[in-house]
Amino acid sequence: MTIDASEDGQTFSEEERAAMARAVSLARRGLGSVAPNPVVGAVVLDRAGRQVGEGWHQKAGGPHAEVHALRAAGPLTAGGTAVVTLEPCSRQGRSGPCTQALLDAGIRRVIFAVPDPTLSGEGTAALHAAGIDVRSGLFEERAAEVNHAWLTSAVTRRPHVTLKLASTLDGRIAARDGSSRWITGPPARRDTHLLRARTDAIAVGSTTALIDDPELTARSATGRPRTRQPVRVVFDRRLRTPVDSRLASDGAAPTWILTTRSAGDKPLGKAELITIDPGSGFLTTSLSELYNRGIRSLLVEGGATLAGALLTEALVDRIIWYSAARLLGQDGAPAIRGLDVPSCGAAPSFRVLGTRRLGEDVRTVLEPESARGKQE
Amino acid sequence: MTIDASEDGQTFSEEERAAMARAVSLARRGLGSVAPNPVVGAVVLDRAGRQVGEGWHQKAGGPHAEVHALRAAGPLTAGGTAVVTLEPCSRQGRSGPCTQALLDAGIRRVIFAVPDPTLSGEGTAALHAAGIDVRSGLFEERAAEVNHAWLTSAVTRRPHVTLKLASTLDGRIAARDGSSRWITGPPARRDTHLLRARTDAIAVGSTTALIDDPELTARSATGRPRTRQPVRVVFDRRLRTPVDSRLASDGAAPTWILTTRSAGDKPLGKAELITIDPGSGFLTTSLSELYNRGIRSLLVEGGATLAGALLTEALVDRIIWYSAARLLGQDGAPAIRGLDVPSCGAAPSFRVLGTRRLGEDVRTVLEPESARGKQE
Ligand SMILES: NC(=O)c1ccc[n+]([C@@H]2O[C@H](COP(=O)([O-])OP(=O)(O)OC[C@H]3O[C@@H](n4cnc5c(N)ncnc54)[C@H](OP(=O)(O)O)[C@@H]3O)[C@@H](O)[C@H]2O)c1
Ligand SMILES: NC(=O)c1ccc[n+]([C@@H]2O[C@H](COP(=O)([O-])OP(=O)(O)OC[C@H]3O[C@@H](n4cnc5c(N)ncnc54)[C@H](OP(=O)(O)O)[C@@H]3O)[C@@H](O)[C@H]2O)c1
Repeated sequence: MTIDASEDGQTFSEEERAAMARAVSLARRGLGSVAPNPVVGAVVLDRAGRQVGEGWHQKAGGPHAEVHALRAAGPLTAGGTAVVTLEPCSRQGRSGPCTQALLDAGIRRVIFAVPDPTLSGEGTAALHAAGIDVRSGLFEERAAEVNHAWLTSAVTRRPHVTLKLASTLDGRIAARDGSSRWITGPPARRDTHLLRARTDAIAVGSTTALIDDPELTARSATGRPRTRQPVRVVFDRRLRTPVDSRLASDGAAPTWILTTRSAGDKPLGKAELITIDPGSGFLTTSLSELYNRGIRSLLVEGGATLAGALLTEALVDRIIWYSAARLLGQDGAPAIRGLDVPSCGAAPSFRVLGTRRLGEDVRTVLEPESARGKQE
Repeated sequence: MTIDASEDGQTFSEEERAAMARAVSLARRGLGSVAPNPVVGAVVLDRAGRQVGEGWHQKAGGPHAEVHALRAAGPLTAGGTAVVTLEPCSRQGRSGPCTQALLDAGIRRVIFAVPDPTLSGEGTAALHAAGIDVRSGLFEERAAEVNHAWLTSAVTRRPHVTLKLASTLDGRIAARDGSSRWITGPPARRDTHLLRARTDAIAVGSTTALIDDPELTARSATGRPRTRQPVRVVFDRRLRTPVDSRLASDGAAPTWILTTRSAGDKPLGKAELITIDPGSGFLTTSLSELYNRGIRSLLVEGGATLAGALLTEALVDRIIWYSAARLLGQDGAPAIRGLDVPSCGAAPSFRVLGTRRLGEDVRTVLEPESARGKQE
């Protein structure tokens, strides 16, 4: 659903629309750096509608987007308008309520795109009470997409889970002899590094950790590691991740190994062992634990068994599927294992959010059929 | 490669470019109706560059596109230009050489998009010899795409084979219990009916004929059968197609059953039995036989075994793969059977010609990596 100015019966000026478009792209810069906070972008317009300051939330514990933008605008905020991607907070957090900062700066009008579900309208109410003209809904869909993971996790209270899979068109992820590297081409691999850069954590199943010995770091287009790295997570009930694996030993990013008490607690190099009580299910409890540790977005990169388990328990919020223009035939390893689908009618089905060619691969982004309903 | 006017160092007027664009779309109307001929569209411009006639080749044995266009232009052809998608023919066919018809009509300039590989330049030579200004290459790529199947079969001397498959994202075409109908949604099914309408023949393997009892007719957007139907073909070495199957009994379109001598020759309703001598391979010989019977484009709609056999013998020129946004898991039936790929390096690979969302399905069009090379 596209909510824009006219549908709401509210009118926004051209300057305000341009400011929100800018605020959304500023917000995007925070992806992967602000957990457990949402990403937020803000632009301040002066009395005459000119852009006089902008900012985005850059890291948890640092100033909120509004504060950055107000500071940049300096004395020009008086009588101006603040355009923000998310409803301004009204609670005393690590950096003070933004609603107060806006009032102190003499802002007269506040436009935000998406309400903050954790505020239950308090931010809007505080501004209203102070006589501010508050409007919402401008570019709501675009702004919600940027904050998609955080908005989902605010409701589910577990990290938003993106399952990334790369298979051949006939759904295989490895050949009969086990060879599997480089099923996809360079553009798809670059795309994966972007996904990694924008997520709070990356996870794999223990067999992938054992067999592939992956690095799981986000590298830039030039192949160099990025400054900020997502946490690396292994789902490893039997604690099979080797102590000399890259994940456990290279220190390139924090590594958390989720395991069970029965696996013992052999030391695992630089990795942190997290013992999960599988009372209400190992995966569910693991995701709660990740949430409690501040992870809001989790990119699961396989393998087939972990993917099947997450799908079976309906713990996948989004799928990013790279289909390579290759065929591996019926003896190739299946993309998904352990998903039990007795008949066509029982097949999990998805909505296609988009599809795009990336070199000789095709990327399709999907959402479970049920997901939208859950959130609305 | 896009060849356009400027790359060739030739100049075409705006009117000539518009006429060729029109001619290409006229040509497209002939798809599925003109075998064993190519599809051709033609536009005639008068001395002043105005469009005064157009036409397309409508059915084998009927007038060629140029003749239709010249007739429509009447006396206005004198001193004019003929814009044609394919090099005009210079041989006495069922309807006389087009080069002569152009000369008789007083045409002074001929522009064609694609050379006819079966003429070895004779058409151009005949026009040159008569003092006509002949130009080629305008919108060559677009015009070649419309005639893609015919141009390929002119070189390979077997029908151009398009393999159409519909699978889930994890490469399955049926669930564990065998259920398989309606894996894809209405937009993909409509798309398939368009493919059928544009092909000379449609084929399936004998197991699909036996189990699915498909109709294999081209229906319009409203679900009604189209006037012209492609020939229906079954690859059936053991002659298992049931006499009471739709293919053998409904008479909705011609049905040819390709079989072997050892299968006997039990009568098969309205279907025609064609006994293939599998000397140089059953599939290769079958395709030659189809070519000899005038089939230039063949749409193979599965199943998995026939698809695997064609791929193994490198007899597939194009793949149209519909990936449904569903998962059937590892117990689902594989999209391709009998294709032996020992390692990732040995995987058949393709070039992606395009990808498009069709409802909740994704259609990807592919060509074998080797195909372009073969033709150039
Ligand atoms: N193409 C791709 O996108 C891609 C990506 C990654 C991997 N791969 C390939 O996939 C292969 C590995 O895949 P895989 O399917 O064998 O293994 P996997 O999914 O990587 O790991 C499976 C293991 O995860 C552990 N696990 C933890 N929690 C689980 C749960 N709730 N349910 C199920 N398992 C759980 C299990 O070990 P415990 O019982 O000890 O916990 C299980 O054996 C490798 O060959 C790799 O190259 C391909
Ligand atoms: N989703 C889709 O796109 C789609 C499309 C079609 C079918 N299907 C499903 O696929 C299933 C049928 O597929 P299938 O793989 O079992 O059978 P199939 O490919 O339809 O037919 C296989 C048969 O074709 C015959 N054949 C003729 N020439 C052959 C050759 N050179 N090599 C191999 N076989 C040759 C063989 O029988 P002889 O030895 O007697 O010749 C073979 O048993 C059905 O369940 C159907 O519903 C799905």
